[in-house]
Amino acid sequence: MTRSERKSYTLREIAERFGGEVVGDSAARVTQVATLENARPDTVTFLANERYLPQLKATRAGVVILGTALREATELPRLVCANPYAYFARVSGLLNPSRQPNSGTHVTAVVDGSAMIAADAEIGPLAVVGRNARIGAGCIIGAGCVIGDNAVLGAGVRLHANVTIYEECVIGDRVILHSGAVIGADGFGIAMADERWIKIPQIGRVVVGNDVEIGANTTVDRGAIDDTVIEDGVKLDNQIQVAHNVRIGAHTAIAACAGIAGSAKIGRYCSIGGASGIAGHLTIADHVEISAHTIITKSIDKPGTYTGAYPFEPNRNWRRNAAQLRHLSDLADRLRALEKKLAALERSES
Amino acid sequence: MTRSERKSYTLREIAERFGGEVVGDSAARVTQVATLENARPDTVTFLANERYLPQLKATRAGVVILGTALREATELPRLVCANPYAYFARVSGLLNPSRQPNSGTHVTAVVDGSAMIAADAEIGPLAVVGRNARIGAGCIIGAGCVIGDNAVLGAGVRLHANVTIYEECVIGDRVILHSGAVIGADGFGIAMADERWIKIPQIGRVVVGNDVEIGANTTVDRGAIDDTVIEDGVKLDNQIQVAHNVRIGAHTAIAACAGIAGSAKIGRYCSIGGASGIAGHLTIADHVEISAHTIITKSIDKPGTYTGAYPFEPNRNWRRNAAQLRHLSDLADRLRALEKKLAALERSES
Amino acid sequence: MTRSERKSYTLREIAERFGGEVVGDSAARVTQVATLENARPDTVTFLANERYLPQLKATRAGVVILGTALREATELPRLVCANPYAYFARVSGLLNPSRQPNSGTHVTAVVDGSAMIAADAEIGPLAVVGRNARIGAGCIIGAGCVIGDNAVLGAGVRLHANVTIYEECVIGDRVILHSGAVIGADGFGIAMADERWIKIPQIGRVVVGNDVEIGANTTVDRGAIDDTVIEDGVKLDNQIQVAHNVRIGAHTAIAACAGIAGSAKIGRYCSIGGASGIAGHLTIADHVEISAHTIITKSIDKPGTYTGAYPFEPNRNWRRNAAQLRHLSDLADRLRALEKKLAALERSES
Repeated sequence: MTRSERKSYTLREIAERFGGEVVGDSAARVTQVATLENARPDTVTFLANERYLPQLKATRAGVVILGTALREATELPRLVCANPYAYFARVSGLLNPSRQPNSGTHVTAVVDGSAMIAADAEIGPLAVVGRNARIGAGCIIGAGCVIGDNAVLGAGVRLHANVTIYEECVIGDRVILHSGAVIGADGFGIAMADERWIKIPQIGRVVVGNDVEIGANTTVDRGAIDDTVIEDGVKLDNQIQVAHNVRIGAHTAIAACAGIAGSAKIGRYCSIGGASGIAGHLTIADHVEISAHTIITKSIDKPGTYTGAYPFEPNRNWRRNAAQLRHLSDLADRLRALEKKLAALERSES
Repeated sequence: MTRSERKSYTLREIAERFGGEVVGDSAARVTQVATLENARPDTVTFLANERYLPQLKATRAGVVILGTALREATELPRLVCANPYAYFARVSGLLNPSRQPNSGTHVTAVVDGSAMIAADAEIGPLAVVGRNARIGAGCIIGAGCVIGDNAVLGAGVRLHANVTIYEECVIGDRVILHSGAVIGADGFGIAMADERWIKIPQIGRVVVGNDVEIGANTTVDRGAIDDTVIEDGVKLDNQIQVAHNVRIGAHTAIAACAGIAGSAKIGRYCSIGGASGIAGHLTIADHVEISAHTIITKSIDKPGTYTGAYPFEPNRNWRRNAAQLRHLSDLADRLRALEKKLAALERSES
Repeated sequence: MTRSERKSYTLREIAERFGGEVVGDSAARVTQVATLENARPDTVTFLANERYLPQLKATRAGVVILGTALREATELPRLVCANPYAYFARVSGLLNPSRQPNSGTHVTAVVDGSAMIAADAEIGPLAVVGRNARIGAGCIIGAGCVIGDNAVLGAGVRLHANVTIYEECVIGDRVILHSGAVIGADGFGIAMADERWIKIPQIGRVVVGNDVEIGANTTVDRGAIDDTVIEDGVKLDNQIQVAHNVRIGAHTAIAACAGIAGSAKIGRYCSIGGASGIAGHLTIADHVEISAHTIITKSIDKPGTYTGAYPFEPNRNWRRNAAQLRHLSDLADRLRALEKKLAALERSES
């Protein structure tokens, strides 16, 4: 959308739509969001963290969204609310509506005659849609996407370019898949016999709920026998690996480069840090937060934050300390021996 | 394949094919595999781990595959054998035969006139095959795949959609490549001069042996000068990075998200855990097992299991302990000093 | 390029071009580079590390590039210089010139009528170029690439097959992007309200400088509001994740599988190891080196090498030591208590 086509909204119109308290000139009009640093008079910015108060002083924004505690932190026209970050998200969504489908199938797309494509769906150039696949109302299928036989996409799904969905997989409504995502590749199922690996056919599907977003180059493997399941509202960042038979509970968010091993069950509303890992067959309770670069090797049955990252240091210090780490058990033994000796000495003293 | 087209097999027919002892009704007939929990009377399931004995009691399966020690653990018709997991793999392969090629080149594929394509190979829609590339008998090339100039694919190779194979690379027989895999991109070869990086042309190839499977979005870089080599029977999960000039020994299996740095040589029958790493120029012996989230920084010359993952804890505990980790060397020094003092004290006592 | 078409160069011609001292037969003629082990008389090899002196003795190379200190380490015709690895890089570039574009747009490519394509650019088969996109002089766009609306590519850009560039992104001159790379996918911006995630539109771009190389399946997210920036000369290996609003300083090199979290600012001439991570909103100074498998959780304001990888051990040893790690803080407390007791004892002795 070019600037000239942009809709604009006054502070009053925004408050009418999303609530909150207007302070200052309610006729202030904005066309776009901006950061505190780069805001201009026709943009709206936000403050969610007191750390950025100095930037607030200097901002040239036309409107600021901020929390009740900071109501008087600026003289600019402002919207005061309980959750300024979420409020900002809504305003940005209003100012940057997602693209609507240009109904129809591009002449270069290859759509099997048996596929069912909603009339208002958009199938982009050089996309491929397999036999008996179903594409719901309002879907946008990007250039170069490949949708396997019998796959089902709900309504309002957005596939960016070059997404691959294997046969039989099911995608809910309003799901967003980014480029390079692969849904439904075979899980890593092999059995050793006579010194050779035998492949175990992966006959489950991937079933993705509604309102899920899956990042670029993330992979979600199909189930070995039963399905791999991504529940409603799950948000997966880029380059995440979800192995076969995993279940990810609703509204859980996982940061980039995390890996979830086979058959792990993750609860609802979890928050899983970047490059972390969950070992296979574990169960993680609801509302668990896992720190970045942490590997979880046992099930977790209580909410809370769990961490296991090696603290970094200048290499020279690390070398000294890490070397000792290999003797930690001996060190503990020696400490225990010392404690005993000292106790004996104290007894002999008294 | 729809249910109605499925072949079915009796327990007796299965035993005739794969061996093992039939106990109970040998005419029991199955059409598909299932998990213990979701099995129905026309499915076959398996028990490879005593942990699942409770599920065995409740299963509705028509046939169970299980080990000799558990021969009497169920009254259902059963197949008793030494390695039930591998047996199950074979039975599932029988019930779920891999797709056969629909010979021919899709009208939308772009195949260079100089490429040699086996008569019975299938080239999918919108695939690209470069100059002088060779595609062996029975290959299936998925939609959107790009096969570079002079690349060679053996017989029975299966490329799922959107695989990329760079020029000159060689792929053996019966290799499976999953979507998003990239074979033969340039290795990371750069040299610094005058404060600028100079690119080192990567002129080696990737040579992949027979019966290799490579997961979704896994990358295998071409050699800098000589080749990168993946030997026969190697199994690579998703999102693995194999750098230039690596050699991976036959029948080694690597779990998702692992990274193998340049020129590392990995032995045969190794098992490498998820998100682990092997530093460059190392040599790893045969039959080495590396745990998940472990980085190997020295060569390993003996079989065995090697681990180096930070144990996770509730964040509060981790913070306390990790802080001490930075003082571990001092702590060891202080312990040594205490030992000396105490020894001196003991001497003065005696 | 087939062998028969290869240009050859004499040692003298090479020295005239790139400098250095010729020792031995300056008419020695080479057509290709080789490793010490596999060199033949018509190839040139190099020695950058004394560790490989034994291989030098046995090499059959026609010409060797080596450092001044090793001038007499071989009797073969040789080029003696200060930085043999960089010199080798230049010679290999001479012998292996990068492919020139075959000007023109492949008949199967889908190029929007509003796109501006330089006359000598090559647009490969089944590539897609969006509305108002601009492709500079001498670009090579590989098969299956998708370039979004309003994206801008400078001169001499090389996209290997199946690269995706989202709308609005800007790529500098002489940039190389490998297959599966995704530039400009949405950053991971979500805000929780009423127990649901709200998506924050990602309206920034990715801006990539000149002479950047980005590896296979690497992802660089567009900025949330402002841009994500990759400065000139940055080299990114495969499967790296660069989150929204990151800035990577000029000439920094990052090894495979690293992850840079949102809004991190990385300096110039940094070297970041494989599978390492930089937490969000940090600032890393110029000339910082980060070891593999290390997560950086605080800003670094001084050059140097920083490390935080858990040292691996045979699993049995690891189990013993890692178990103690969970008691490290207690262990330190006990040590302190012992020190106090012993001091008291010493006082009472004296």
